[in-house]
Amino acid sequence: MTPSLIDLLTAARVYDLEQPRFAGMPIHPAHRPGYFYALHRRHRDTYRPAAQGPRSSASGVLTMMEHSGTHLDALCHQAKELKMFGGVEVDSAETPAGFSKLGIETVPPLLRRGVLLDVCGWRNESRLSPRYGITADDLAGCATAQGVEVRSGDVLLVRTGYGALWSGDEPTYLDAAGVSKAGTLWAAERMVAAVGADNMAWDVPDERDPETGSTLFAHLYLLPQKGIYIIENLNLEELARDRRWVFAFLAAPLKLEGATGSPVRPLALV
Amino acid sequence: MTPSLIDLLTAARVYDLEQPRFAGMPIHPAHRPGYFYALHRRHRDTYRPAAQGPRSSASGVLTMMEHSGTHLDALCHQAKELKMFGGVEVDSAETPAGFSKLGIETVPPLLRRGVLLDVCGWRNESRLSPRYGITADDLAGCATAQGVEVRSGDVLLVRTGYGALWSGDEPTYLDAAGVSKAGTLWAAERMVAAVGADNMAWDVPDERDPETGSTLFAHLYLLPQKGIYIIENLNLEELARDRRWVFAFLAAPLKLEGATGSPVRPLALV
Amino acid sequence: MTPSLIDLLTAARVYDLEQPRFAGMPIHPAHRPGYFYALHRRHRDTYRPAAQGPRSSASGVLTMMEHSGTHLDALCHQAKELKMFGGVEVDSAETPAGFSKLGIETVPPLLRRGVLLDVCGWRNESRLSPRYGITADDLAGCATAQGVEVRSGDVLLVRTGYGALWSGDEPTYLDAAGVSKAGTLWAAERMVAAVGADNMAWDVPDERDPETGSTLFAHLYLLPQKGIYIIENLNLEELARDRRWVFAFLAAPLKLEGATGSPVRPLALV
Amino acid sequence: MTPSLIDLLTAARVYDLEQPRFAGMPIHPAHRPGYFYALHRRHRDTYRPAAQGPRSSASGVLTMMEHSGTHLDALCHQAKELKMFGGVEVDSAETPAGFSKLGIETVPPLLRRGVLLDVCGWRNESRLSPRYGITADDLAGCATAQGVEVRSGDVLLVRTGYGALWSGDEPTYLDAAGVSKAGTLWAAERMVAAVGADNMAWDVPDERDPETGSTLFAHLYLLPQKGIYIIENLNLEELARDRRWVFAFLAAPLKLEGATGSPVRPLALV
Repeated sequence: MTPSLIDLLTAARVYDLEQPRFAGMPIHPAHRPGYFYALHRRHRDTYRPAAQGPRSSASGVLTMMEHSGTHLDALCHQAKELKMFGGVEVDSAETPAGFSKLGIETVPPLLRRGVLLDVCGWRNESRLSPRYGITADDLAGCATAQGVEVRSGDVLLVRTGYGALWSGDEPTYLDAAGVSKAGTLWAAERMVAAVGADNMAWDVPDERDPETGSTLFAHLYLLPQKGIYIIENLNLEELARDRRWVFAFLAAPLKLEGATGSPVRPLALV
Repeated sequence: MTPSLIDLLTAARVYDLEQPRFAGMPIHPAHRPGYFYALHRRHRDTYRPAAQGPRSSASGVLTMMEHSGTHLDALCHQAKELKMFGGVEVDSAETPAGFSKLGIETVPPLLRRGVLLDVCGWRNESRLSPRYGITADDLAGCATAQGVEVRSGDVLLVRTGYGALWSGDEPTYLDAAGVSKAGTLWAAERMVAAVGADNMAWDVPDERDPETGSTLFAHLYLLPQKGIYIIENLNLEELARDRRWVFAFLAAPLKLEGATGSPVRPLALV
Repeated sequence: MTPSLIDLLTAARVYDLEQPRFAGMPIHPAHRPGYFYALHRRHRDTYRPAAQGPRSSASGVLTMMEHSGTHLDALCHQAKELKMFGGVEVDSAETPAGFSKLGIETVPPLLRRGVLLDVCGWRNESRLSPRYGITADDLAGCATAQGVEVRSGDVLLVRTGYGALWSGDEPTYLDAAGVSKAGTLWAAERMVAAVGADNMAWDVPDERDPETGSTLFAHLYLLPQKGIYIIENLNLEELARDRRWVFAFLAAPLKLEGATGSPVRPLALV
Repeated sequence: MTPSLIDLLTAARVYDLEQPRFAGMPIHPAHRPGYFYALHRRHRDTYRPAAQGPRSSASGVLTMMEHSGTHLDALCHQAKELKMFGGVEVDSAETPAGFSKLGIETVPPLLRRGVLLDVCGWRNESRLSPRYGITADDLAGCATAQGVEVRSGDVLLVRTGYGALWSGDEPTYLDAAGVSKAGTLWAAERMVAAVGADNMAWDVPDERDPETGSTLFAHLYLLPQKGIYIIENLNLEELARDRRWVFAFLAAPLKLEGATGSPVRPLALV
């Protein structure tokens, strides 16, 4: 079995679903200042050819919110009535250095069947209207039109079209379309392992669940109640352009002990 | 082809080669202060059930050197006579925000045949002597004993045994064994895509190349001259315990624009 | 002598010239992301009354550009033709950890006669027009009207009126009035020890010196050529309201070794 | 009155009581990683003489705990039974961005009569024994021998001799002498405005108050119960050498909104 996995893997076409990371990339207001990299050690600083030979090195320092850029939310990121997934009380797990339970280091690498529902393409729009809430019917209709099925254990990716605005139009990007409550319920019913979208939150910005009054319904439902991960700020443009609806999905969050999320470079392989 | 890749991938046994990340983990002196995560937003801070429903969220801020923890070096990390890989002059690429060429964002995801040479196990030692330099003969002998071949394009991982000391014994960890110049040349001759080890540098700490006078020979040779990536601070304990010498190797560095390296969570699949 | 200094000092009326520091305060685009404080250790985290008694503590972590908020520029912050004050070549002093010469730690505490020229008040404006360049005649006229003299060794503060916009109107604040080239020359002729203003840069934003083509003339002239310090983002509102034109000025930059500036809390005592 | 304050201030001999700040300076384990400055923007990065004239600039980024180096503790830094000074409940004031009450921005500039009790010099020791607890009798005896009186509203500084070890001997520095419970009570009885010492904490490391079981008695008593500030990591060497027992004391903490302390550059003027 091993050889053929190696063979298939090394021969696969790889789609890179991570947006580039740079100071000034779009960031949710709650996660400002977001991301900053400073190159402080430059090659000439360590270049001492007479004493130390021809080698020199350079390096920098990174300051970042764990919810900047393309990233995966840990289960500890959200709670319902101060309880996280599995009924863990927030007070029992919060420490200055992060969560003692349900931190991102507890998330296994995701190696899953992946499905893209290109709702934006299916509706023949370059991107969906700002704050449009993708419905369950949208997801079901798009899946039918694409001829794909969402199965238990899958990673379900939904395209709004806003990923194309990553570099350079933060205001529009932050005012994206997203998946409505009904769409989120549809995904959860299919028992996916994770969901992801090419916007800041999967959810529709500021949309309130009429039942509970909470914003970001998926954050309330999928993480603390269902244990389903959310991946944000994906780049789904190439995948959609090539009409790759089904693929092998890979994402391996970093084991940042106690953190509430991790940057990831998700891949789709076909 | 796609379905079978999905099938094989989702059925694979996954070995996680990343060491956990926490404040106080071993760090090379050149990369202090290393790593720090602060959880500043806690659930009760955003919990306003009457006004905003039952949802709350938590998050933190991360300060880290890109060469902390398990990570992959970008080609811009090292230079020879102030030239990086491909002859790129360091002065032409350094900016306050990182390198305009050869930054970590230019490294493709690594999906490769992987080979582990468990030199430490082959020599029946729990770990090699401090500062022992693994020779070409060691690598060749170990490969023969394990019955494996290192091929062009592979990711070659070498086990010193020091990875077992990650959590709790920084002084010993920093004084590890590594791969000598001859061992590095042996790997390069096999035209591997990347090398990695369960120590801080792949190289032997402080060992000087008699020819050039430089420390960290592999950093001088593999990165600026051969374009071969180096992965550091791997956890190879489980892989060795299970005697998995050949596997599908996956590592996807983050596209931190201009950075000289990236944390990674490398995986071995069998 | 000592007792009377103590007596006078403890009896003095103190004007606080520092703007408050908070995430989101105005920041020059070159110094983004500016300022961020995260409280990560909270009292309950260390509260273990049974084992450790009733004491608990809290603390946080600060990430900041040294040119954020009210601050003083070190001489190494600026160069003319790659030479800093005293002809020090930039290449001879730059290191990853800061400047080995002319860093902010070399700046003595400033305890000086201070003079405020309230140009904005003198012109009966609540604030000067955006990008208005305060001329030498403005400064001389204002000094005459106020009946004050600027003397050698003084700290000269100039009020544009923009300091009142610190909390809440970054775009207008960044588009402030400032001191023109002629005004800067007038100050330098008086051989002041330092200048300061209630805007981002003392200088007029984006104004170019017709002779050299450089923006920020005072940054080119005062720091590398004259050794005169610049203090930015002052709050001069109370001082102006009370018409305190002459006072004892105090500011003590932190000895951040090698840094190009330091936050300060300047005081005016009368 | 103003002119003479200016005259006295500008003529004063200034003693700088701040220790230099650099990566690797001593830090209390609770406040690691402490302090880090990275110079990322160098002069050549902005030097474009043809297009922009001869001016260039450099700057960096600072990451620091507010309790690193010479600093002043805010009242919110400590609590007794989860109540801070004035009975403020910690839960009512903690936010992700700091304290909404009793933050360092509420501390006025300290311009006070200052008194140095050089206990170490009085006992003819180069520094006191590790973990020696300075008693009330020590303070009273030293004051008598020096011929000075500690008065209400003073800033009281106590010298252990450990300040001389700031640069280069962190283990010894962290194992310093300090002021015992009785010494702290003696200071508080004199109704000083602030206390300070040339060690990490004023208090004796790890000494427990037999009555409450808490370590750092002064942190429990002075901050939450008495509203007396604590200044740590002072450099008192020059002041002691010159036998300056009484002086004008100045320290102006930065208005870091919500922070639990601030770096300061305290001065003694005679």
